[in-house]
Amino acid sequence: MPEMRRDPVNGRWVVIAPDRADRPHDFHHPSLTTAGGPACPFCMGNESETPPEITAIRPASSPADGPGWQARLVPNRYPALTLEGEAEEGGDPLRRRMSAAGSHEVLIETPHHQEGLADMAPGHIAAILRLCRDRMVQLLEDRRIQHVMIFKNQGDKAGASLSHSHSQIIALPVVPKHVEEELAGAARHHRETGRCIYCSLIAEEERHGERVVESSRDFSALAAYAPRKPYETWIIPRRHRAGFQQATDSELEDLAAMVKRRLARMKELLRNPPFNLVLHTAPKGDGYHQSYHWHLELLPEFTWIAGFEWGAGIYISHVSPEKAAAKLRD
Amino acid sequence: MPEMRRDPVNGRWVVIAPDRADRPHDFHHPSLTTAGGPACPFCMGNESETPPEITAIRPASSPADGPGWQARLVPNRYPALTLEGEAEEGGDPLRRRMSAAGSHEVLIETPHHQEGLADMAPGHIAAILRLCRDRMVQLLEDRRIQHVMIFKNQGDKAGASLSHSHSQIIALPVVPKHVEEELAGAARHHRETGRCIYCSLIAEEERHGERVVESSRDFSALAAYAPRKPYETWIIPRRHRAGFQQATDSELEDLAAMVKRRLARMKELLRNPPFNLVLHTAPKGDGYHQSYHWHLELLPEFTWIAGFEWGAGIYISHVSPEKAAAKLRD
Repeated sequence: MPEMRRDPVNGRWVVIAPDRADRPHDFHHPSLTTAGGPACPFCMGNESETPPEITAIRPASSPADGPGWQARLVPNRYPALTLEGEAEEGGDPLRRRMSAAGSHEVLIETPHHQEGLADMAPGHIAAILRLCRDRMVQLLEDRRIQHVMIFKNQGDKAGASLSHSHSQIIALPVVPKHVEEELAGAARHHRETGRCIYCSLIAEEERHGERVVESSRDFSALAAYAPRKPYETWIIPRRHRAGFQQATDSELEDLAAMVKRRLARMKELLRNPPFNLVLHTAPKGDGYHQSYHWHLELLPEFTWIAGFEWGAGIYISHVSPEKAAAKLRD
Repeated sequence: MPEMRRDPVNGRWVVIAPDRADRPHDFHHPSLTTAGGPACPFCMGNESETPPEITAIRPASSPADGPGWQARLVPNRYPALTLEGEAEEGGDPLRRRMSAAGSHEVLIETPHHQEGLADMAPGHIAAILRLCRDRMVQLLEDRRIQHVMIFKNQGDKAGASLSHSHSQIIALPVVPKHVEEELAGAARHHRETGRCIYCSLIAEEERHGERVVESSRDFSALAAYAPRKPYETWIIPRRHRAGFQQATDSELEDLAAMVKRRLARMKELLRNPPFNLVLHTAPKGDGYHQSYHWHLELLPEFTWIAGFEWGAGIYISHVSPEKAAAKLRD
């Protein structure tokens, strides 16, 4: 029998309906592969196809915007936001607007077109995570920037427009809606219990065990209690910290190894699904240090947003989190 | 230059970034067609493939669950919610749950596999709308039901699992998150101005004109000021009513003709895109009569939800609503 569940942080209801896994589909989804080489702006040798790099992981001897790199951070050639002018709200109550003062950058994670994040060495993933952390610190220094989103879309169904492995960093002049909702839920839990909700969640979930996917020295991987997508997994640091900027090199090494294990297991279990990996971190400011707690959310993408999700904001999953955790653990 | 805009009702920020229309895509999207006939549970002659019909549009002489119908309302064979037991919240603060006490029904809109909503006669669309309205009234009589969502997914990218034209009716034991956000925004506007925000919106938009797609006797079709998707269109009744149940037969005739014109124009302009059509209506109860106002939201689906939308709840459009309205008007 289907069950409704409520996300403990943002209060979002979802439906867990295992019987829906059996329903018929008459659409065909051919799997998509693309060739690299001259046509791919992210492949080695095509550095001139991107704007000049902001930073890179490359030997000290190799010049910027030439070959020889392991990863490159470049401005998005088609930015959703740009750091021009001030971020002032204008318009009238029915038509509020603001110049999109922010930035939109692309992190090309590998020179190799066919290499996915799950295939990379843990040391390389750790270097990418350090680069992201350090860039976040820089971006937050701009007085117009309130929040930095770092995320990865792998595969076209996950919203990627290019298949060469990359992440994106978007710096925003506002605190986005979903972040505000998490901050509010976490603050309420802190007021009511004196504790951080993510710290409580790790303690409670590890005590019960049924939704624990993996525990490492510094991180806990949990099947989300009220998932938006089957197999949705949250990776939460054990150490209470509101912002990703505060993660240590040592923690990022532990995280890199866990990210690799999680992606490799998901790739094997779910036959290389498209996925989104999203960093959730506190906005600029001191107001969230005690109540909020940074983490990663990993969502495989099998299904598309439909009218019910657009209208209700309720997601329907056909795999229970307990079953998902058991399968992801193996 | 990109611009951020805020939805007047729910406060959601979006980004309008026209230059992003030019970015490269290396994925291929073959268009998908499916055959009807014996394999399709919604085709004429396959009535035994669905649960027994709840109601239908068919001649008085034709027996239920046999051929001869124009439209059938049946329980979803793979329901996300079922009316068994009570809808009581349980669990602890980190793990709230509730039995999914509600219903999930499918409205098969036509016996013809290849006929889309845009192809149907206005009189037939009006009959479907009346059936939906009357079913909503019935469902709201169950004391467990708090809200009824009616929506249509056309095409697999829009979340449809079958291509034969159909809509869905989901009755819920809770007021969903997105509905609560709209109710709250509308109530705030009403407190501050003494007016319904949708009534204000029609008046203001028709005065300016740049986002008006079409005006009819009873409805106004507007390009959404802060769209989640390019060409997102809202169809709002001129007469102030919180609930769809209160729509008159005459209004539904006018609406049917507008829905047909909007879908036909979108089909032509955007080359038969997948789309979602979602009815937004007030939940059960008297608290919303003055501040809320039912309407339809039409979203063509070209793009998929990506990490930024999952994390931030901010949508990026590459077509401005003003340009969209001009193209949709032609």
